[in-house]
Amino acid sequence: MESVSFPPLSSIAICGGTHGNEMTGVYLVREMQKHKVDKIGSVSISTVLSNPRAVDVCRRYTETDLNRCFTDALLSSAITDSTPYEVRRAQELNAQLGPKGSEKAVDMLIDLHNTTANMGLCLIFYNADYLPLQIFKYIQNKMLSVPVRAMQLDIPLSDAYSLDSLGKHSFSIEVGPQPNGVLRADIFNIVKEAVDHTIAWLQEFNSGSTFKAGEVEAFTVVKSVDYPRDPVTGEISAAIHPQLQDNDFKLLKPGDPIFLSFTGETVKHEGEELYPLFVNECAYYEKKIAFHLAQKRTFKLPSIHMKKD
Amino acid sequence: MESVSFPPLSSIAICGGTHGNEMTGVYLVREMQKHKVDKIGSVSISTVLSNPRAVDVCRRYTETDLNRCFTDALLSSAITDSTPYEVRRAQELNAQLGPKGSEKAVDMLIDLHNTTANMGLCLIFYNADYLPLQIFKYIQNKMLSVPVRAMQLDIPLSDAYSLDSLGKHSFSIEVGPQPNGVLRADIFNIVKEAVDHTIAWLQEFNSGSTFKAGEVEAFTVVKSVDYPRDPVTGEISAAIHPQLQDNDFKLLKPGDPIFLSFTGETVKHEGEELYPLFVNECAYYEKKIAFHLAQKRTFKLPSIHMKKD
Repeated sequence: MESVSFPPLSSIAICGGTHGNEMTGVYLVREMQKHKVDKIGSVSISTVLSNPRAVDVCRRYTETDLNRCFTDALLSSAITDSTPYEVRRAQELNAQLGPKGSEKAVDMLIDLHNTTANMGLCLIFYNADYLPLQIFKYIQNKMLSVPVRAMQLDIPLSDAYSLDSLGKHSFSIEVGPQPNGVLRADIFNIVKEAVDHTIAWLQEFNSGSTFKAGEVEAFTVVKSVDYPRDPVTGEISAAIHPQLQDNDFKLLKPGDPIFLSFTGETVKHEGEELYPLFVNECAYYEKKIAFHLAQKRTFKLPSIHMKKD
Repeated sequence: MESVSFPPLSSIAICGGTHGNEMTGVYLVREMQKHKVDKIGSVSISTVLSNPRAVDVCRRYTETDLNRCFTDALLSSAITDSTPYEVRRAQELNAQLGPKGSEKAVDMLIDLHNTTANMGLCLIFYNADYLPLQIFKYIQNKMLSVPVRAMQLDIPLSDAYSLDSLGKHSFSIEVGPQPNGVLRADIFNIVKEAVDHTIAWLQEFNSGSTFKAGEVEAFTVVKSVDYPRDPVTGEISAAIHPQLQDNDFKLLKPGDPIFLSFTGETVKHEGEELYPLFVNECAYYEKKIAFHLAQKRTFKLPSIHMKKD
């Protein structure tokens, strides 16, 4: 595999509060703003509280999920009196950090999230951009106190719906378990460390270092599983089984328990062996997702270095 | 200590969803309603979804915290156009399950709550009513898979602010850790078991059993501790220290770490040895409480039995 070069990465945006009740990003961004962190070495830093109205009321969003508003269609939609606040805010953020897909977009964008699932530290990528995957490999080698994994979404850029899609390169950081509205010091420190490693990687890249070819593993979602529901009321009739709860990324085999009904019956996994992700994530109840199921894939990475003019 | 007798306990109310995002009670009450559970042996059972509007939007409350609305003052306040929904609902519940302090009130009321704190199974009592303390002792002896503890509030009945104060006898059940808006099967089963043991105890009581004299330990809150805050913005500037996080009921000694600031400084406990409770409870951020501090007290219980006519 031949070596790949990229232009210098002189700007990074660090975003928190895209979901207003995921507290790690809210507090980390506020802390950086308080200390007026706007440049480290060769990298200029923008810190962004993405959904300030949702942060004020400590909810995921006020009218619609901001982190589903960054498709080309919504970013170019006409604003009318009935346009939700979050769609307006997405267009503001696109003007500030993008425009998406353009030369003016920020070089690197990382968006900080929490989950109630036992996901450890999980980096989420669109497609297979070698550059953030090299950062993932770097973070994985540096951070040994927490499982560091990657999840990959196969979506064309025009349909990419999340805030991080505004950057030339990007990823989201999902860390859990942490309840919505709660700040845990251990998780705050994990995210801070991952952000610090990302900035350190950018410094090394900009100073001319070459990052070696190699391989990384990432999880690709193939389907989502809803809770069992009462056929009449539509209410859920079972909870995640205790043997699945907190066991994100542990291979699920046919016959393994997945749900425990309120009357005590066990529901078992059927079909192929897959990895459960985002098990019992709070925000997914309304999306009718009890957990995702993913395949583990190996990505071959070329060596990368900075393009010299 | 002489024996104490009480009239038969022929009615129990089981309430959930007093806080609309504490899911164990919501689902347990719905499940009992679905199966039309309204009488078991000698005990008639009312199941109540206390704050249906808050349950619908999965929030703690819509206008004000329902579980602070059951003081005599609020229960007798005049309803006007500006009266919050929850105050109206408290008066409805008082008519249905009370009136508070009257002969018509339900004999036993248990109210089901969750906390994001690592509280295990904690029963909360007003004052020192021997009857629910005997039930606590019974549950503690029966349930060995989870720590079962009691917390006691020293408040006169007129100022007692929570729903459970409507019953002739009562307690709240707090179980955690569980994020708001999330249902865990393990915690659902713990609460279901505690409710089943309570109903079993009532059957034994009504059939003439005597419950022996003895002792129980309970925790009495003596003060609450707020987060360190930025003097200018009022924002919190530290999280619960990792050594305190998840260590509810573990004696806190002078010099033990309690907070870790966002810049890495440790704040230590000063003053007397006390027990931390409700450490990092989500709903207490707005109440400016990082944790409670409590003393452990021993309560002597007389033997109790049913009064015969």
